[in-house]
Amino acid sequence: MGEKKQNRTKHSHSGLVVFVVRVDAVERNSVNANDHGHMNVMHAVCSGRYARPIFNSVLLLVVVLGPRTAEAVWPLPQALASSAERYPLNPSAFCFSYGARSAAQHGCSVLDAAFRRYFALIFPDATSVNDVHSFHGDKAFAVEITVDQDECESYPKADSSEKYNMSVSAGQASLNAETVWGALRGLETFSQLVYQDDFGSYFVNKTKIEDFPRFQFRGILVDSSRHYLPVKAILKSLDAMAYNKFNVFHWHIVDDPSFPYRSSTFPDLSAKGAFHPMTHIYTQSDVRRVISYARLRGIRVLPEFDSPGHTKSWGRGQPGLLTPCYKGGIPTGTFGPVNPASLSTYKFMKSFFKEVSSVFPDSYVHVGGDEVDHSCWRSNPDVRAFMQKMGFGADFTKLEAFYMENIVNITSSLNKTAIVWQDVFDDHKHCSSLSVVEVWRDGCYLCEVRRVVKAGLQVILASPWYLDQPGPTHNWARYYTVWPLAFKGTEEQKRLVIGGEVCMWGEYVDATNLAPRLWPRASAAAERLWSDEKQTSSVDRAFPRLADFRCKLLRRGIQAEPLYVGHCKHEYQV
Amino acid sequence: MGEKKQNRTKHSHSGLVVFVVRVDAVERNSVNANDHGHMNVMHAVCSGRYARPIFNSVLLLVVVLGPRTAEAVWPLPQALASSAERYPLNPSAFCFSYGARSAAQHGCSVLDAAFRRYFALIFPDATSVNDVHSFHGDKAFAVEITVDQDECESYPKADSSEKYNMSVSAGQASLNAETVWGALRGLETFSQLVYQDDFGSYFVNKTKIEDFPRFQFRGILVDSSRHYLPVKAILKSLDAMAYNKFNVFHWHIVDDPSFPYRSSTFPDLSAKGAFHPMTHIYTQSDVRRVISYARLRGIRVLPEFDSPGHTKSWGRGQPGLLTPCYKGGIPTGTFGPVNPASLSTYKFMKSFFKEVSSVFPDSYVHVGGDEVDHSCWRSNPDVRAFMQKMGFGADFTKLEAFYMENIVNITSSLNKTAIVWQDVFDDHKHCSSLSVVEVWRDGCYLCEVRRVVKAGLQVILASPWYLDQPGPTHNWARYYTVWPLAFKGTEEQKRLVIGGEVCMWGEYVDATNLAPRLWPRASAAAERLWSDEKQTSSVDRAFPRLADFRCKLLRRGIQAEPLYVGHCKHEYQV
Repeated sequence: MGEKKQNRTKHSHSGLVVFVVRVDAVERNSVNANDHGHMNVMHAVCSGRYARPIFNSVLLLVVVLGPRTAEAVWPLPQALASSAERYPLNPSAFCFSYGARSAAQHGCSVLDAAFRRYFALIFPDATSVNDVHSFHGDKAFAVEITVDQDECESYPKADSSEKYNMSVSAGQASLNAETVWGALRGLETFSQLVYQDDFGSYFVNKTKIEDFPRFQFRGILVDSSRHYLPVKAILKSLDAMAYNKFNVFHWHIVDDPSFPYRSSTFPDLSAKGAFHPMTHIYTQSDVRRVISYARLRGIRVLPEFDSPGHTKSWGRGQPGLLTPCYKGGIPTGTFGPVNPASLSTYKFMKSFFKEVSSVFPDSYVHVGGDEVDHSCWRSNPDVRAFMQKMGFGADFTKLEAFYMENIVNITSSLNKTAIVWQDVFDDHKHCSSLSVVEVWRDGCYLCEVRRVVKAGLQVILASPWYLDQPGPTHNWARYYTVWPLAFKGTEEQKRLVIGGEVCMWGEYVDATNLAPRLWPRASAAAERLWSDEKQTSSVDRAFPRLADFRCKLLRRGIQAEPLYVGHCKHEYQV
Repeated sequence: MGEKKQNRTKHSHSGLVVFVVRVDAVERNSVNANDHGHMNVMHAVCSGRYARPIFNSVLLLVVVLGPRTAEAVWPLPQALASSAERYPLNPSAFCFSYGARSAAQHGCSVLDAAFRRYFALIFPDATSVNDVHSFHGDKAFAVEITVDQDECESYPKADSSEKYNMSVSAGQASLNAETVWGALRGLETFSQLVYQDDFGSYFVNKTKIEDFPRFQFRGILVDSSRHYLPVKAILKSLDAMAYNKFNVFHWHIVDDPSFPYRSSTFPDLSAKGAFHPMTHIYTQSDVRRVISYARLRGIRVLPEFDSPGHTKSWGRGQPGLLTPCYKGGIPTGTFGPVNPASLSTYKFMKSFFKEVSSVFPDSYVHVGGDEVDHSCWRSNPDVRAFMQKMGFGADFTKLEAFYMENIVNITSSLNKTAIVWQDVFDDHKHCSSLSVVEVWRDGCYLCEVRRVVKAGLQVILASPWYLDQPGPTHNWARYYTVWPLAFKGTEEQKRLVIGGEVCMWGEYVDATNLAPRLWPRASAAAERLWSDEKQTSSVDRAFPRLADFRCKLLRRGIQAEPLYVGHCKHEYQV
């Protein structure tokens, strides 16, 4: 079924608010949802808050008392049908349970923890979670979860299915997914379906959902080098990511200004390279905590250890790693990128990435490779001699390629797939060891995407989602109207675009402004990366939904800034 | 003595850090601080964090263990001399006391509360404030406060002196001021002079300060209509204002979107005009709390009830107040500005402002008058008939002037001085009842300032400090390099510029982002409004001081965003 235009009129009948929802085919932009092979259900959206008094033909009559129904699910599920039939939910007669044929059962760490979390999110006014699981009376509303695979103790992976389907009917809901990660997504959706009426009573409407992400990789990059972010700020970001169905926490953990990662193999790196060796570091235990917290939310932790550039802070704790810069044949005392001409560099990197590979369970690691300045290399006689020996002539991009190839080989040998910034691809397109390229430069980024997929490599798109700079206005729509596949290419090539990423660089961002700068602007990217593009092409229709979702984020303690004039029932409490 | 250029070199002597401070006359921009008639002391600034290894002549040798001394006072005092001599401070042997000849003594509500507050700010690691006042042993460091006037139970006024002088020497500090408000400013300065060394010990250096504000009116406008701000968010802003020596809280309390002020005379205004009649209002008790909290910090509360435009929300609770708009001779059902043609309007306003005048103790009230759209007035036959009768012809600015003159007369009769937005002046320059004009429009705002002072009226400058929009970059310097008196005019005319104001409009701002959007950018305005312009003309020299001050704000729980890459000893805790 194609995209629908919903026009609503509002009538008042002795306290009952009646919404007449009219679903008409849209002439322009008419699309067929079957293109994506998902079920042919109507995406019915019912709410009176932003009703416009225009209509053509009556297709559906919806009667609701409360102000919201399924409309408020963000990002929008692929296929959703809901009706006016609603069921009251009693916090003390509500339970999550495992289906009989579910591969995961009681004791599944991921889901057990999620049940506890989502109970509190679904019933924010309930004072105790003691009743969860304990109620087994006849009248309990049960949400029954069934998953095909028992991955309860493992980590979400690059190819983990996040598909789920859900059916909410009288007295129960059933949520089915291939994996526990899909079940997490379904629980998030369910939590957003529940609403309170003006008397504080909880309701959920009869609903059917089939849902899956458009893109597999939906990331947020956070930079803990330009400013140190306390672990709590990272955990809070992971909470918000889960509410938005993001699934990759790209931890740009070190860079020029500081090296907060406390390496067990090379403790001097943070002892000398962090802003402060005790208070501004991430201990092994901190890192484990972040990874574990992310895992429970179905979020992968992708560490980035960017080199050979962006490594000033490494040099302090690892003498000899960086290239000494020369002027007039004399060392200036300053240092450039990692020294690619020294054997010890590769020995160090092998040892360092060995540790990284064991600390971070994800099978991907980001090795950077962006913005390498060649001038210091050029000034250094040893580097020039090495160039000579290797036959690179005066082409420093060849040296850079040589270095990056070595790093990628190191990570390969550790069974990790390397992700690189586009610079690495741009400078040596034919590097056979590359597999995933992150496109970040401004300008015609889709041209670059096209070049990368033409070379048969996977793409993560970041260019349109640089949220670290506040825009000239609070133009969230700019992050919503991004069309990652709007380039000429084959279906196979388009499948190489594995997803996108919001980048929150740290020049001007720390724990004081991370949350309001991310949310809800990153939510715009979240819907673009999860939802069907054709159902979510209209900024006007997204606006009230996003405003609603932003109120939900506030209620959950996320400091999401306002989109425009208005209010939330529960404002953010300072 | 003129402005000084400080060049520092850093030497390390077995753990002792020695800073050699060289103070050289600057050729260009050389100024004479005596221009402003204050004492001829050297503004000596000592810190090693941003040292540059350049020097010419040694004037002063400073040996310090800790990283900061008097440099970190923001906004910069008018005259400050400090030396390397430093005194340890023991939280359990520290007290504030009243000088024998002080007009205020124990029991002075403003100062007693300030002592308690500043003790906690000075000693953030001290776990208890029980020791304050209780210690009277020989070794106690005493801060003795002497004020000339006993205004302990009154409110700060437009012409209240904020002048103070302070001398910190061995075992004691003396702080003298004409008023308790000046004493508050001195306490803030003293709190910023105290620092901790790496072992956590507290110190203060020998210091002499003579200080007073450059401008009397240093305000922040906060908009609680476009988004409701919980009272806590307002109180937190007042805290931060006090740290920055702002002294006017301009409360733009109502506007088109909502009317949160709960009027006792016209309760329907908020019952029908607030976003929510119970949760999104300011009760009389809330307002009293804000006024009292502000008073204790030497901050005036300037309420704004803007009319005749920006009043949509008023119309809901006060039928007949707004102008019915017409189209083709028929009322459209929509409403325009306040109806200036109806007698009942003035009756209502008289009654309303009577309440406002009794609720808000300040002798000023902001009556708005900006952005009046004439089209609805023009469409209304009653308004047109009134124009005819009054002989205004088709000149609606005359009608607007008539309306504003009536409002100003109402407030005058209530012994309040009205402040208006520049529009009122622009449209009828010869309105004899005007006295204070707030300049807000962009463009050549100094041209407007000049016009206003030429007409003999006072000016509050807001144009350069619209902080509600985030800039294209985080360009705090833009708010620092503002020269409010850089227009051709007599000394007398320049004295009519009574100050300036930061405007934080609420379209995109609520409690989620108010603090990081205000701070530390508003701090740039704070220094411009308080400090000597000639001593604070350099952005480069302000940067490290502002970065330091921002860390202080963080330590005090103010969510001030970072200026650039770096860290604070105590980061903001989420």
